[in-house]
Formats: sequence, C-alpha cells, structure tokens
Amino acid sequence: MKITEVRKCQKRALQYLRKAHLVYTPEEARHIEVADMGLGMIEQFGLEVLVYENNDRYCAKKLVLFPRQTCPEHRHPPMDEQNAGKRETFRCRWGVVYLYIEGPPVRRTKAIVPKSRKEHFTVFHEIVLKPGDQCTIPPNTLHWFQAGPGGAVVSEFSSSSHDETDVFTDPLIHRLPVTEQ
Amino acid sequence: MKITEVRKCQKRALQYLRKAHLVYTPEEARHIEVADMGLGMIEQFGLEVLVYENNDRYCAKKLVLFPRQTCPEHRHPPMDEQNAGKRETFRCRWGVVYLYIEGPPVRRTKAIVPKSRKEHFTVFHEIVLKPGDQCTIPPNTLHWFQAGPGGAVVSEFSSSSHDETDVFTDPLIHRLPVTEQ
Repeated sequence: MKITEVRKCQKRALQYLRKAHLVYTPEEARHIEVADMGLGMIEQFGLEVLVYENNDRYCAKKLVLFPRQTCPEHRHPPMDEQNAGKRETFRCRWGVVYLYIEGPPVRRTKAIVPKSRKEHFTVFHEIVLKPGDQCTIPPNTLHWFQAGPGGAVVSEFSSSSHDETDVFTDPLIHRLPVTEQ
Repeated sequence: MKITEVRKCQKRALQYLRKAHLVYTPEEARHIEVADMGLGMIEQFGLEVLVYENNDRYCAKKLVLFPRQTCPEHRHPPMDEQNAGKRETFRCRWGVVYLYIEGPPVRRTKAIVPKSRKEHFTVFHEIVLKPGDQCTIPPNTLHWFQAGPGGAVVSEFSSSSHDETDVFTDPLIHRLPVTEQ
C-alpha cells in the first residue's frame, strides 16, 4: 500500500475509534496498523488495528472494520509444543460484526461473501456480535468476519499475538503489517 | 457485605461504566464483583470489577473505583513452576488513577494514603494514569492504586487471573469475591 493510502485509512480508523468513545495517544494513532493482507483491496479485505499491549503472555487490541470490510478466513496454528496457538476473544464495542467459525453453517449469511475471492471462504457458522456481545475462538479454528453496513469497532483480548504465523485459506494472502512508523 | 450494600455499589459502578461509554449485558451487570477486601469500608478500600473474560491464558476486566477508593497494596505471586504470577496492564478509560509500584518513591503522593491502615502501604513510586495512559506491572511486584476525586474506570488486561492467591501487605485483608449471583 502507498503511504498516502495508509494514512488515509489510519485517519478514517480514528474516526471510528472516536465514535466508539475510545481514547488513544498521538503515538498510538501514528502506529495504527493498516492490514490489506497483500490483496490490495483495503476497502473490501483487511482491517485496521490499534495494539494496546502485546507481550509473551497476553495481548489487547482494538480492531476497526470499515463498512462491509472483511477480515479473510484464517486460523492461528500452534506455535510449538508449549503454545497451543492463539486463543482470542472478540467483544463488539460499536457497530455490528458478523463472525463465522467452524460449526453448523447458516443457509444465508448476513455478511456478503466477497465474490472475487469467494472460494476461499469455507466456514459459515454465524455469530452476530452487537455492542457488549463477545465470543471466544479456540486456537487453530478457522474464522473470518465482516462489519455490518455501518462499520464496527471490536476489542480483541487474546494470548500472545503473532500475526505473521496466521494461516489464511486464500493462498494469495500474506500478512505483512504496514504502519506509519 | 450486606446484599443491599453490594447492590447499591453495583448500581453505582454501572453509572461509572456508562460515563466511560462502556456497554455491558444485563447478565454482566448482575455479576459485577464488589470487593471490600474484608475490611468493611467499601467507600475507602476496595473496587468494583466487571470480568469480560478470564481463562487459563488471559484475562480482561473493567475496574471501577469510586472517588478516592483505594485498592490496597498487594502482589501476584508465582502460581507454580510453569506460571510466573500474574502480569497485568492497566489502561485508564475514564477519570484519573494514581498507581504506586516498587521503585523510587515520590515525596508527596497525589493519592491520599488512608490513615486507618497507613502502615500497610509501603511502595510509593507514582504513576498517574489519565484516559489513554497505560502501565504494565510485572509479576510479584507490590502495587496499590487510588482513583482521583472524580472516580475512575480502568481496563485491565492480564495473564490468567486468580484473585484468591493475591498477597496483601495488610494482614487484615482477605480477598473474597462478593457478587450477586
């Protein structure tokens, strides 16, 4: 992504954080990660991430999703024998999120499955998260999520986060964090 | 604590959560923990806790402190050889918190050290947390904190939480969670 586009997405993400009444430092604002997953279609695929804390034991982030923006299907594999892979809890703070995990599928998803990469969405057990709702995703479990038509802000609480080890269903995806440092 | 008093504190804690624009479910509201630490002086000593998630890997809570309410000095000792003791990150969401940890002491604390149990406060390295500020406390490190004159709401992100194993400096304290179940 071009740095001008990253900055534009960061600014827009801050608007959503403010809508959710979240407070951030200027330093944090500058380091919001804009993750387009290497697909180059940030409006459709990706998310914006503000990391509060990430250490070898736990992690806390805020995720911003623009309207209908989709975090593509992926799982968090075991890191080694000591680490079962990332477990994570999503808690909706603002807007609506449609979350899909392994399990009995819905017939018609509330999310709009992006046509261009449709074949790389394979799990359709639907969980709708509105403000105050939360869901914990076990390690190594396929999941993807999309904001409703108004966008969303989500708190993510988890074990230690190592995004670079995420396994995406779509072979075109590579998870390279892009921030303005 | 009498159940009527617990309910009163829960209601009051909810007012602060709303001031911080936090959203909670009715179920969560009913389970807010009112911890008076066994001292029976909840206005002075204790805090109100809303647990979002606590599992064997990580924990996320919201802490409410009434004006000048103090969480007494304590540390989180190692659980066993595998677990170094709880590490925790406090992030101020609303109001002001005066946090004290081991380290070079201030001459005059912004917190008002409660006279009645004064001898049980021994660390005075001061960190002032305003909305958006955060601080991570290592395991087994003495700390205590007090809200400013307007009260405070704090996010706590941590490794797994086992409050019952906390070691308090004040021998009168016993950490028995009291919630309306």
